[in-house]
Amino acid sequence: MHIFYTPDIAHNTYTLNEEESKHCVRVLRLPVGSLVNLVDGNGGFYTAEITLDNPKKVVLSILNVERGFHKRNHHLHIAVAPTKNIDRIEWFLEKATELGIDEITPIITDRSERRIVKEDRLNKVITSAVKQSIKAYHPKLNGAISYDAFMKLPFDGEKLIAHCIDQGEKKYISDLVVPHQKYLILVGPEGDFTPEEVNLALNKGFKALTLGDNRLRTETAALSVCFEINYLNR
Amino acid sequence: MHIFYTPDIAHNTYTLNEEESKHCVRVLRLPVGSLVNLVDGNGGFYTAEITLDNPKKVVLSILNVERGFHKRNHHLHIAVAPTKNIDRIEWFLEKATELGIDEITPIITDRSERRIVKEDRLNKVITSAVKQSIKAYHPKLNGAISYDAFMKLPFDGEKLIAHCIDQGEKKYISDLVVPHQKYLILVGPEGDFTPEEVNLALNKGFKALTLGDNRLRTETAALSVCFEINYLNR
Repeated sequence: MHIFYTPDIAHNTYTLNEEESKHCVRVLRLPVGSLVNLVDGNGGFYTAEITLDNPKKVVLSILNVERGFHKRNHHLHIAVAPTKNIDRIEWFLEKATELGIDEITPIITDRSERRIVKEDRLNKVITSAVKQSIKAYHPKLNGAISYDAFMKLPFDGEKLIAHCIDQGEKKYISDLVVPHQKYLILVGPEGDFTPEEVNLALNKGFKALTLGDNRLRTETAALSVCFEINYLNR
Repeated sequence: MHIFYTPDIAHNTYTLNEEESKHCVRVLRLPVGSLVNLVDGNGGFYTAEITLDNPKKVVLSILNVERGFHKRNHHLHIAVAPTKNIDRIEWFLEKATELGIDEITPIITDRSERRIVKEDRLNKVITSAVKQSIKAYHPKLNGAISYDAFMKLPFDGEKLIAHCIDQGEKKYISDLVVPHQKYLILVGPEGDFTPEEVNLALNKGFKALTLGDNRLRTETAALSVCFEINYLNR
């Protein structure tokens, strides 16, 4: 069944915007009486019936709603340096949404080659993956922020940093965390965090993690973190 | 240090082909006396010195070789239906090479939308990831084969099939396999395997696996399998 993302749903009926209405009527060719699904990005999963198939203004009548649809049993926040080639971070966002993630913050580090991200575009990638993989929760993309500013923000869960510097003890995620927590995990840019950035994190109570012997690209490291946290929580 | 893929290395010296020689001299600007690394795709990791910097014919003298470099402790063979959009399977090959995989077979199933793959191009993606992630072993890409023909081939390891059909018991990979084995794992196309294909596999001794509640794209499912097998073997 076709799925629409409707974060502003509030009543027993819902009107699709012009773009979605056109898609619904002209591309999907759904007539009055067809059933569709809606997700509100906040855990609501709806079944609705088309009651008006105007290509500029499709009206849906909500038949059923399930709250907390596939609610996740932990909260995963990954703060990652955006890659030089933006395709790579878009891939990460799509795959992380499929596998399960709650919050992403692009962090601009000392060695970041990319210092600007277009959040609108990245959010579209996430929304598309939300619909494709039928998630009722929409991962939250925070605005890009400098590493130093980010490290001044409060955070009350388990805090880890992935880095490749040969400095101090590192452990696997499975040896560092327990299930069903809030996690914040930092992943650096192509050239890694600087020793000063790592030290700042360690001083703030972050623990250093290893993802094994493989030399991973930034987006692969971030996805590996996502896999592993979801694996440990399933 | 720059790395070259040299599967035909056989002596104490090695001559780069014209394309690599040009890259070495004109792009990397490496003069005589520079050190580079070579991997032969079969476990050999070499350190070599440039003894002739001719842009058509760079000659390297081997200084050191390490055999069985980062030898893997298991053998993972994933047979996956190539995706309609070939970028997606290329992405899988790149990421699987980074994370660790030994053998890949593109299988053409009943519901495969893509029935032809360009193996040369896919092998280039793998080789690029081999160099980027400094692997001395080059994953083997087999020729595309029909599902039925593939199922007639002998295979002596642990055999699993990932499918989404609501049919019979499915278990997590971690409940189905033990570490340090040979594994063959089947991943279907966008529209899944047919019930007949699943039954054929079950009759051949394959066990049905689940990757959890998430609805994953083909390439995400295949990468999930790759992640999980490597995780269980680390």
